[in-house]
Amino acid sequence: MEILKDGEKLHDLQLDGYQIIQSDDTFRFGLDAVLLADFANAKKGETAVDLGTGQGIIPILLCAKTEVKSVTGVEIQEKLADMASRSVIYNKLTDKINIINADLKMLDGKLDKASYDLVVCNPPYKPLKHGLKSESYEILAAKHELLCTIDDVVKAASSLLKFGSRLCMCCRPERLFDIMNTMRKYKVEPKRIRFVHGKAQKPPSLLLIEGKRGSNPGLKVEAPLIVYNNDGAYTKETEMIYGRKV
Amino acid sequence: MEILKDGEKLHDLQLDGYQIIQSDDTFRFGLDAVLLADFANAKKGETAVDLGTGQGIIPILLCAKTEVKSVTGVEIQEKLADMASRSVIYNKLTDKINIINADLKMLDGKLDKASYDLVVCNPPYKPLKHGLKSESYEILAAKHELLCTIDDVVKAASSLLKFGSRLCMCCRPERLFDIMNTMRKYKVEPKRIRFVHGKAQKPPSLLLIEGKRGSNPGLKVEAPLIVYNNDGAYTKETEMIYGRKV
Repeated sequence: MEILKDGEKLHDLQLDGYQIIQSDDTFRFGLDAVLLADFANAKKGETAVDLGTGQGIIPILLCAKTEVKSVTGVEIQEKLADMASRSVIYNKLTDKINIINADLKMLDGKLDKASYDLVVCNPPYKPLKHGLKSESYEILAAKHELLCTIDDVVKAASSLLKFGSRLCMCCRPERLFDIMNTMRKYKVEPKRIRFVHGKAQKPPSLLLIEGKRGSNPGLKVEAPLIVYNNDGAYTKETEMIYGRKV
Repeated sequence: MEILKDGEKLHDLQLDGYQIIQSDDTFRFGLDAVLLADFANAKKGETAVDLGTGQGIIPILLCAKTEVKSVTGVEIQEKLADMASRSVIYNKLTDKINIINADLKMLDGKLDKASYDLVVCNPPYKPLKHGLKSESYEILAAKHELLCTIDDVVKAASSLLKFGSRLCMCCRPERLFDIMNTMRKYKVEPKRIRFVHGKAQKPPSLLLIEGKRGSNPGLKVEAPLIVYNNDGAYTKETEMIYGRKV
């Protein structure tokens, strides 16, 4: 089996030799995926699902950086699911990561209900009516609510989670109230949020949020996560999250 | 008329000579009031109401630092309302500030409905069941939901506000979701939030939130407000908010 297809490249995660397959005409992972994988704080022996896994960055990061037992990556786009599967093989993670090419709105009979410790999702950020539509279909679907909405994601996550277990997502900060309401609607109570700021003096560019299935209300707001120092270099915390020596 | 009663002192606001009367057995204003008065961003000619004005710190700050037309301070505790009235006289602000000794839950017939540009409130923070109860009644009432709840405050504010005008409040960060839901319940849509952090690496200690009467959804999360530098001195922004030269 060829690991790389036309137009694809291996991207070095600079993390114990792990690599990921990417191509220019599909959505490329960004800092948000790296921050979300860290925020999710997966614990030893946990079973996780990544909804909308794309080229599989979050499952690979979770396996590279935590003692998670298994991660199932769900991806609706066949091309991306195929890339993700080949990255899993390349990194020798087939005993831990299972990629399935499926629509997260139709997981019945494919994944067991109420049986996972953690669901992670870096969903499309923009409502369909906003944003540029001049990009490839693959990129559009990854960035916009084309194939799924926040409601679809939280509904799917809620049905997969054990009682008391966690959904960790990221989204645009302005969707904070929407996402909290959607979580509560599906009995995933918002418990922890963290805002990510490019620089300390700037409004946040990203919201990280954790909800717990069936939990009582009680929200913790964490310290801001600042990505860059004023000199433009990554902050110590960003470097640590990337897994680099600091 | 005596300006000071037994046990009272004038506190210098270090702001163009403005002073405020305080006493040790009533709640003393803190940084939160100063930050809220700034966050409220009162504009020239606006009419404002401060619900639960205490010793009148917010009306005095608004008049000292903005071109607001008038501020009505509502205070349920007679002793505090009396102190606030004397501070208004002392500062020669009787043409701008009106203090009324009233329960914010019973403002019908006392203040005109749907007629103010801005309502400000630094409400009691803690649900009644929490916290120490060993303090004076006056301090207890200012800190806990003894005489009013968040629901009471937002309900009162909503009835005072013109369509499209603003409610600015502060509260504990963990009440974020509650307060947003309460605002929406009374048709005061959450539009702007800002978290206040003692230091940049710490979780927030305070949430500042603005809602607009009758507005459409759309939330803006602002840059974090950091109170202290790591050396323990106020940050430049805190000094500016206090109105000091930086």
